[in-house]
Amino acid sequence: MPSAPFVELCQTARDIGTLNSVSSLLNWDQETYMPPAAADHRAEQASMLASLVHERRTNKHVGDLIATCETDKSIVADPSSAAAAAVREFRRDFELATKLPGDLVAELAKVGSQAQEVWKDARQKSDFKLFAPWLEKMIALVRKKADCYGVAKGGERYDALLNEYEPGATAREIETIFTPLRSRLAGFIAEIARSKNKPSDKPLHAKIEADRQHKFGQFVLGAMGFDLKAGRLDVTTHPFCSEMGPSDVRLTTRYRDEKFTDALYGTMHEAGHGLYEQGLPKNGKLDGIPLFGTPLSNSISLGIHESQSRMWENLVGRSRGFWEWALPHAKQILGPALEPFSVDDMYRAVNIVTPSYIRVEADEATYNLHVMLRFQIERALIAGDLEVAAVPSTWNKAFKDFLGLDVPDDRRGCLQDVHWSFGLVGYFPTYTLGNLYAAQFWETIRGQVSDLDQQIARGDFKALKTWLNQNIHAHGKRYRAADLCKMLTGAPLSADPLMRHLEKKLRPIYGI
Amino acid sequence: MPSAPFVELCQTARDIGTLNSVSSLLNWDQETYMPPAAADHRAEQASMLASLVHERRTNKHVGDLIATCETDKSIVADPSSAAAAAVREFRRDFELATKLPGDLVAELAKVGSQAQEVWKDARQKSDFKLFAPWLEKMIALVRKKADCYGVAKGGERYDALLNEYEPGATAREIETIFTPLRSRLAGFIAEIARSKNKPSDKPLHAKIEADRQHKFGQFVLGAMGFDLKAGRLDVTTHPFCSEMGPSDVRLTTRYRDEKFTDALYGTMHEAGHGLYEQGLPKNGKLDGIPLFGTPLSNSISLGIHESQSRMWENLVGRSRGFWEWALPHAKQILGPALEPFSVDDMYRAVNIVTPSYIRVEADEATYNLHVMLRFQIERALIAGDLEVAAVPSTWNKAFKDFLGLDVPDDRRGCLQDVHWSFGLVGYFPTYTLGNLYAAQFWETIRGQVSDLDQQIARGDFKALKTWLNQNIHAHGKRYRAADLCKMLTGAPLSADPLMRHLEKKLRPIYGI
Repeated sequence: MPSAPFVELCQTARDIGTLNSVSSLLNWDQETYMPPAAADHRAEQASMLASLVHERRTNKHVGDLIATCETDKSIVADPSSAAAAAVREFRRDFELATKLPGDLVAELAKVGSQAQEVWKDARQKSDFKLFAPWLEKMIALVRKKADCYGVAKGGERYDALLNEYEPGATAREIETIFTPLRSRLAGFIAEIARSKNKPSDKPLHAKIEADRQHKFGQFVLGAMGFDLKAGRLDVTTHPFCSEMGPSDVRLTTRYRDEKFTDALYGTMHEAGHGLYEQGLPKNGKLDGIPLFGTPLSNSISLGIHESQSRMWENLVGRSRGFWEWALPHAKQILGPALEPFSVDDMYRAVNIVTPSYIRVEADEATYNLHVMLRFQIERALIAGDLEVAAVPSTWNKAFKDFLGLDVPDDRRGCLQDVHWSFGLVGYFPTYTLGNLYAAQFWETIRGQVSDLDQQIARGDFKALKTWLNQNIHAHGKRYRAADLCKMLTGAPLSADPLMRHLEKKLRPIYGI
Repeated sequence: MPSAPFVELCQTARDIGTLNSVSSLLNWDQETYMPPAAADHRAEQASMLASLVHERRTNKHVGDLIATCETDKSIVADPSSAAAAAVREFRRDFELATKLPGDLVAELAKVGSQAQEVWKDARQKSDFKLFAPWLEKMIALVRKKADCYGVAKGGERYDALLNEYEPGATAREIETIFTPLRSRLAGFIAEIARSKNKPSDKPLHAKIEADRQHKFGQFVLGAMGFDLKAGRLDVTTHPFCSEMGPSDVRLTTRYRDEKFTDALYGTMHEAGHGLYEQGLPKNGKLDGIPLFGTPLSNSISLGIHESQSRMWENLVGRSRGFWEWALPHAKQILGPALEPFSVDDMYRAVNIVTPSYIRVEADEATYNLHVMLRFQIERALIAGDLEVAAVPSTWNKAFKDFLGLDVPDDRRGCLQDVHWSFGLVGYFPTYTLGNLYAAQFWETIRGQVSDLDQQIARGDFKALKTWLNQNIHAHGKRYRAADLCKMLTGAPLSADPLMRHLEKKLRPIYGI
């Protein structure tokens, strides 16, 4: 029988969840169908919803309820129980919401929105000097934010920022995994670069109109088990996945006539996020209490979220088995432009690895080097070990070290990402954490679902989806990412599974 | 310099307006793009928003602010001033929101939703007995509602219901206009029925696919001056117009391959509503106070709203000039199916008048008889002069009197409309008030815009739109409908302009 304060906390969380789901619709609509002139009022609507949520998250009474639950032995006696985990996360959310003074929140928002405009201009002109004073302001504010959250003993400021996106992770732990990964990846990518047996990219450039791509995307979504009665696929400039209620998960993608695999893998990526959201127990109950809005029906972290999207995009979507199944359907739905190509042609083309400047266009292997470079730089900025003025030279030197390329200009270098302009620091490493978790989970899944490759080769993704539903999605935020990883794979997160996966796939393709 | 209480009232109204605009988005999305499984959560979201609005509308402090403003001479000295009108409407809204006890509101909602399900079933089975007990419950609740609102001296219960939709109107006044209209219309329609020169309906049944109809709809919207940068046109089962912010007005329509004029006139009708919403001063200010959410940027009444939609649909869209301009474009956009038809063919076809059973499919002339019949019956139900059990026989007898047809079953008789099932009583007469206001305004506009017919015949709707913007839309709710009518047309609302319009148009068409 749950205690009254716990029930009340869950009710508050549900109200907040409902308000947040309305905000998600406001945002989704803005990116999809909203008429352009409505933008100003949309900002008013969003800000009113945000303040209604903020009121509820920071309500003193919520703090009292949490404190009461924290001393309730029936809840916290077993810290691994669902209720104890919920209280742990109620606390974390309350601290995140209350530790920042209102004027800092306002200033972060204001400077963020201004800095973003300057960043756009600076990137277009490839002029870092324009952006530098704003980046300085933003780093100062973000450091202040970290100090408000508080730095753990023996930890560093950066950890407090990381905690917003990857609860419980620390810079030091991440470094321990990233450092060996970096040198192994860099060596392996250099080997690939020297290969004389490079795949042709011709199949990627088959011209296919958007309508057909959309139909094929929907077909793949259906096969993956994404429930289109409880979700949609629409078109936006920047693809995303948005949950706006227990049975409402909306994906977006974009179509380029001249490279259909961008949309295909984009859609599979967002669908991986979407399957996570659809798999979370948002319609579930704990001792009669609906879970919607509570931590027990929310996702663990950005890293785990990204592991789901990357798994479907890369481990499923870039496998040979996937193309064995998908190619006949692709030829039928996408039309004659694909006729000349074999499964092997497709498989090789979608696995081309080659160093390039832009992170969001990078392949499965080099992508992680882009991320590690950003992690290193932003961590140094927060620690005070790097001046903003030195960012471009540091970036370019590291880029040469990591990827072997000379950065031609800051537009294709340190000005390419929007994140820092609005204060997202501690966010980048979660991209690579996602790749690492995906690869490590994948090894475990292959051990437990014996004929996974054959299932994929016949387009049967049920066992895979069920495994993810039961072992990852069903828990909500009950376990921290690192604990879940140990629980499921028997080992802490490591670079080994990702390296094994890449080597096993890419050595035969490149004949190295 | 506006007083502080007035400024605060406007601020509250703006907050309510913003929350309502979010509710509108929730509803629009539900009717257009929402995945079906999301319906339950959408109801949660809508109900949370509704309760946030209700809290704000019924806040005791708002009542105090209104009372203060009502004694503020700088506001109420001139009762025709904008500020005085705003206070008058703040009062009306506060009364509407506070006079109903919470349990009555809840019961109306609950019985309404149950009765609607029963009504669906009863209509399908054409079995009034199924529905009768629910209609009885609903009428009893609606009478209770009227009593809570309060009946004015010398007035009747029905007026209190009418006031929700048509502020200030009374059943007696409406009766005074409807009674002569009914006999004149009935006689005229009988004359038409005897004509030997009936138009052919062939042009209406040209087969045209939905894509082309949508393109033509957008083209007509653009010509009418509907701002598609601040609005959209989408597809729904039941067409509507929804305003969700100062620059966000969304229309919906539906396409039937076999009768393209349904969508065309449906779109023009909704665009008439939409032009009113776009014309209201939602981005305007009064002495520096933003008007959004306040009565000064809201529409006057359902009757006036309907006058705008009917004007574009019937007075513009079914005129010969409209087809002179539109037909060449229609042939180009809608394709070869229209090739055989002349302007005269189209003009005659869209003006066919013939008695039929279903209100929503009725033509411009017979439509009003359908409405008057409902007004008579619902008024008698509320007055206690008619038993629910006698509704079918009363309906059928009146239908024979008004339209000369024997109603074959209740599905095509008193069970056809959804309104009564969820307690919408006092709503029906606003449909005909809309037609009457439209015709009366139209005579005035023709007097002031001398070559209106020629302008329409070249697709130039600017002067018409400007007239409506300046004389009707710009005032918001400043004037009551009856006062605005006198102010603009120099006369109280009357049946004459509508009869003159119908006779002038239809006599030549039918050669009578």
